[in-house]
Amino acid sequence: MKLLEERIAKDGKVLGNEILKVDSFLNHQIDPSMMKAMGKEFAKLFAEDGITRILTIEASGIAVAMMTALEMNLPMVFAKKSKSRNIGDDVFSAPVHSFTYDRDYIITVSRDYLSENDRVLLIDDFLANGEALRGLISLCSQAGATIGGIGICVEKGFQRGGKQIREMGYHVESLAIVDAMDENGITFREQ
Amino acid sequence: MKLLEERIAKDGKVLGNEILKVDSFLNHQIDPSMMKAMGKEFAKLFAEDGITRILTIEASGIAVAMMTALEMNLPMVFAKKSKSRNIGDDVFSAPVHSFTYDRDYIITVSRDYLSENDRVLLIDDFLANGEALRGLISLCSQAGATIGGIGICVEKGFQRGGKQIREMGYHVESLAIVDAMDENGITFREQ
Repeated sequence: MKLLEERIAKDGKVLGNEILKVDSFLNHQIDPSMMKAMGKEFAKLFAEDGITRILTIEASGIAVAMMTALEMNLPMVFAKKSKSRNIGDDVFSAPVHSFTYDRDYIITVSRDYLSENDRVLLIDDFLANGEALRGLISLCSQAGATIGGIGICVEKGFQRGGKQIREMGYHVESLAIVDAMDENGITFREQ
Repeated sequence: MKLLEERIAKDGKVLGNEILKVDSFLNHQIDPSMMKAMGKEFAKLFAEDGITRILTIEASGIAVAMMTALEMNLPMVFAKKSKSRNIGDDVFSAPVHSFTYDRDYIITVSRDYLSENDRVLLIDDFLANGEALRGLISLCSQAGATIGGIGICVEKGFQRGGKQIREMGYHVESLAIVDAMDENGITFREQ
């Protein structure tokens, strides 16, 4: 998505070879026009996938999932993060490892909002090692829901998550894939 | 806001005399049409307040703040929650006490996204004791920003926060104010 690539090139901050900060428009401060454009793009990319529900993970997935839900006129659910393993039996839960913070947490979704009748579109702001996505996939699997697609704003193509998740056979769409980056610039994958 | 009151009466779950669960449409599963209606209402209610920026707090404030930002065409920023007191000096930070979980946490906003040039609209999904709002007010105060208004989806009018925050002189608008509730029903304040 050209608009997003141009915005990342203009406003993204590269720290070392691994950290890309886009908190001026994507995951701390939010630019509503950029979010709207991304929601429209996901709605177009997944229009033929029979989606019934959108699932994301708090906190930075919520804004773009909200805009996608608005464009597709579908309910959106956000999985909650918890540090406690003391989880009630009214939820589906899955462990997720965060490489950024080097810690584990548990994500949960109420059993009321995910079922075997759902065909789910997973949405998240970033895809790096794919840990959060694997947690969301596990929640869907526990619910008996099928996954109709996976939509990512920014994929770090030099990390393993995107390749692994695509090899699992899912319809994955990343609006921008960063193949390399350093202080001199960012190389996006041709799509 | 009639539409919200009707939805709370229909889908809200009252547990005891204090807990009102609206997680089927507001803060776990999200109904995009309800969120859009609330965003439009806030945009109308605060149209004359000279707002330059919207500030909320992760995670359950993000969806409605996103929709308000979209309607007002203004940047939105969400404060992040942290349990660590080891916070960098590139952020404003404030302590918040959660009565729900009986614990303290720190909220932070980058100094890049809040300044003395801002007239801020604070948005949150719930107002009970007002702890989260006081934290957001503190962040604005540290930045030298002025507060142009405070928009709340559901105020628990029988708890102290709404009264205290209004006594501080702010323009507060709650889309629904619950004055009493039990297993037999919910009483909304006439507005």
